[in-house]
Order: sequence, then structure tokens, then C-alpha cells
Amino acid sequence: MRPTITAFDWVPDFAKGQVRDLRVRWALEEVGQPYDVIYLSQGEQKQAPHRGRQPFGQVPTYEEGEILLFESGAIVHHIANTHGTMLLPADPAARARAVEWMFAALNTVEPPIMDHATATLFERGKPWSAPRLPSVLARIEERLGELSRRLGEQTWLDGDVFTAGDLLMVAVLRIIADDGLLDGHPTLRAYVARGTARPAFVRALADQMAGFTGAPAPEFAAWLARQGERA
Amino acid sequence: MRPTITAFDWVPDFAKGQVRDLRVRWALEEVGQPYDVIYLSQGEQKQAPHRGRQPFGQVPTYEEGEILLFESGAIVHHIANTHGTMLLPADPAARARAVEWMFAALNTVEPPIMDHATATLFERGKPWSAPRLPSVLARIEERLGELSRRLGEQTWLDGDVFTAGDLLMVAVLRIIADDGLLDGHPTLRAYVARGTARPAFVRALADQMAGFTGAPAPEFAAWLARQGERA
Ligand SMILES: N[C@@H](CCC(=O)N[C@@H](CS)C(=O)NCC(=O)O)C(=O)O
Ligand SMILES: N[C@@H](CCC(=O)N[C@@H](CS)C(=O)NCC(=O)O)C(=O)O
Repeated sequence: MRPTITAFDWVPDFAKGQVRDLRVRWALEEVGQPYDVIYLSQGEQKQAPHRGRQPFGQVPTYEEGEILLFESGAIVHHIANTHGTMLLPADPAARARAVEWMFAALNTVEPPIMDHATATLFERGKPWSAPRLPSVLARIEERLGELSRRLGEQTWLDGDVFTAGDLLMVAVLRIIADDGLLDGHPTLRAYVARGTARPAFVRALADQMAGFTGAPAPEFAAWLARQGERA
Repeated sequence: MRPTITAFDWVPDFAKGQVRDLRVRWALEEVGQPYDVIYLSQGEQKQAPHRGRQPFGQVPTYEEGEILLFESGAIVHHIANTHGTMLLPADPAARARAVEWMFAALNTVEPPIMDHATATLFERGKPWSAPRLPSVLARIEERLGELSRRLGEQTWLDGDVFTAGDLLMVAVLRIIADDGLLDGHPTLRAYVARGTARPAFVRALADQMAGFTGAPAPEFAAWLARQGERA
């Protein structure tokens, strides 16, 4: 059964290549599973039809026969779990550790990183954002140091085998790579470079980028204009 | 094989009943699995022996024979996955949806809730915390409204059957219950009340509370004194 995912036909430039359907596309490419995409225009994600799929009005979602899922972490887990051992090793202990890294990516490393996005993008210019930034950066830096020490000389988080845990961790670390926040962690920079050099990632990214064929909704056009004024 | 988890022998009052080993204890109680606890004193979690278990220097961890895991979400998943269908239903679609709610709890609902804890506890009194609070509360409120609408009249998130997704969602929502943030959402208050009335939860909470037999480390004693000055 060929699955269908949802993605956006337009996002602001800073979000291009970062929208979370990328994680799902990447997992599908890793396991060699073709898929279809329903593109939503900005605003459509908050309307009733999509809310039926995704209660928080976000992308991505995943439909495959009677299965309808949201949450990129859960979708990646489902794809990994139903496609042999390409993203989750067969050995039960190694499989549990791969799931461990999935949760570490999404519950330990991503929250301070999204906090940084809030401070520098979504709430850029708010009076509290600049004063708070050093504290946010310190939290990120602590996690990056810990992750870098754990990764050490290994290729992937659990050793030689790429898993769904690496997929999500690389996707999360990529968010701050362009801000230079990985520059003090060559181990993590090299890890992200290894992940994003994978042919499956390259295809997934190209396909997300190729899907941005729409135009900003009026609210967004106004928001972009305000950003311009402020810049 | 009887598993061993790690927990703290002392935390500040506001954290009692909220430390994340509670989620693991709750899952173990739901499936009827007895376990042992290694108690760490404050500070020990950042020292080498525990860092070997948990790269981010946190609790909980879980050891069972050759399996060593961290991340409460992953540990709950492992317990659920290896104990029949008590926390993850047998039907593959329902099982995937239970995992979906686990990720929704930890990657969509918990981040703004932890942000609130940062603003009101860990960074209470910082010049940016009070001005930023309305924006944090608005993000929480949006998620609560969406979750409440999705839950509707159902007993649990996927209908009649309690899953690991409910376990984590209830654990996450409980964090803000005492702050009154659920007061505008009777559906969610009743949902949390149903979850925390489960005998397994009651036992897990009592056991976590009974484990706080230690004393604050010197840094913490100093921190508590500073809180007192500021209060
Ligand atoms: N925890 C969710 C987060 C999804 C999410 O943040 N989606 C964003 C795009 S990356 C979105 O749809 N934002 C639009 C909106 O919230 O209106 C997941 O991993 O699926
Ligand atoms: N994402 C992690 C978070 C663990 C966590 O936040 N642990 C806290 C207690 S609730 C901790 O050990 N804090 C002590 C510290 O960071 O020094 C999990 O779910 O296991």
C-alpha cells in the first residue's frame, strides 16, 4: 500500500528544508518506499479537513490504508517498524537503543533547539528574546557537549549502524547548523555531514524543496512585510 | 529478569512527584513488573558512573540484563513492547496510534509545558521571565484546546483503551495541573484525574515519594536559601 503524506506548498525561506515532513520523506527513502504527497497551502493546516488528520493543525501526517498517523517521530517509527531492519536493528537490545535515541532527539535535544528558533525567528524582536538568548544558548551548548562526548569516534550513535535514532538526531541538529551553533563541535558537524550525505536524505530534501510551488497566504505576506520593516 | 531503574533520593519540593522515573515506575506497575531502584544523591547524576548510563546526566535509566536504556519515553516504550498488550494494543494500527500519542505527549505538548517550568521555576526572577510568560501561556493554551477537542467525550486518547500514550500524556499534563492551567479545560482535568486514579499510578507515585530520604547537596542548599531570599 503506497502511503500519502502531507506537506506545505509554501513556507518562509528560513523554514525551507526544515519542515518536518522531511523526516518522514527521509525515512521513506531509506527503506525504498515510494509515496504520494498532499500539499497544503498556508492556513489549510488549521482548517477542519486537516484537523481531522492532525489535531494540532500541523504537518506531517501519514496515511496508508486504514492507518492514519501524525507526529513525525511516530511516523518514522512506524515506517522503520514495518520495513524490516533497515532503520531499527533486529537485535532487541539494539532496537530499544535506536528508539532511545529517537526519544533523546525529540525530547532532550530538540526542545532547547526549538527554543532558539522561538527566540531568533518566531519571537525575534520581542523585548524578552535578546536578553534570554544567552540562557537558551547555554542549554543547547550543554546538550551538544554531552552528545558529542557520547558519540565520540563512532560513526553513528549506537556504533556502526545507522538507525531511526540517527535519522531524527541529524534532522534535529541540522536546525542549528546554519546558525553556526555546531561550529565548536567538529564531532557533531561531521556526524550531521555524514547523515545529510546519505542518498536518501539528499533525495528527501530535494523533493521537499521541489514541493514549494505555492504562494504565501495573505497573513504571511503581511508578516513577511513586517519582518522586512524590522530587518 | 528484574529491572533496575535510577531515581533521586532528594529533589526540591516542587519536583517531588514529578521526577521522570515516575513515568517508568507507572509503566512497570501497569504491567505488574517488580523492579529495584538505585537512588542517586543530587550531583551524582553528573558524575562519571551515571554519565556512563545516561549521557545527559539525568534520571531515569533502566537496566535489565544486557539492556541499558535512558529516556523515559523509550523506557516506557520498551516496557510496553515487552509486556504483552497491556500498554500497546495488539492491532498494528492501534499500536501505531498509541506510539503516536507517546510522541505527541513528549514532542508537542511537553515542550511548552517545560518552557513554563523554566519561566516560573528554573529562571524565576530573571528579567525576561515575567514579560515572556504570556507568550508561553498562550502556546500551552493552544495545545490544551486542541488536545481537549480531540479527546472529546472519549475516556482515553484512542477511545476505550488506556495505552502508553495516555500514560505519557497524563504525566505531562499533571505538570501544570497544580498551577491551575487545566482549570479552563474540564475535559482534560477529568482525563488527568482518570489517569492518576489508576492503582498503578497511585503506587508509582507513593513509591517515588517514599524514595526521597536524602538531603540536599550543598549547592542545592545554597539555591534553596536564595529562593527563600527572593520569595
Ligand atoms: N511534533 C510535531 C511537530 C510538527 C510541526 O512542528 N509542524 C510544523 C512544520 S515543521 C507545522 O506544521 N507548523 C505549522 C503550524 O503550526 O501552523 C511533529 O514532529 O510532527
Ligand atoms: N528527556 C529525558 C528528561 C529527563 C529529565 O529531565 N530528568 C530530570 C529529572 S525529571 C533530571 O534528571 N534532572 C537533573 C539534572 O538535569 O541534573 C527523559 O524523559 O528521560
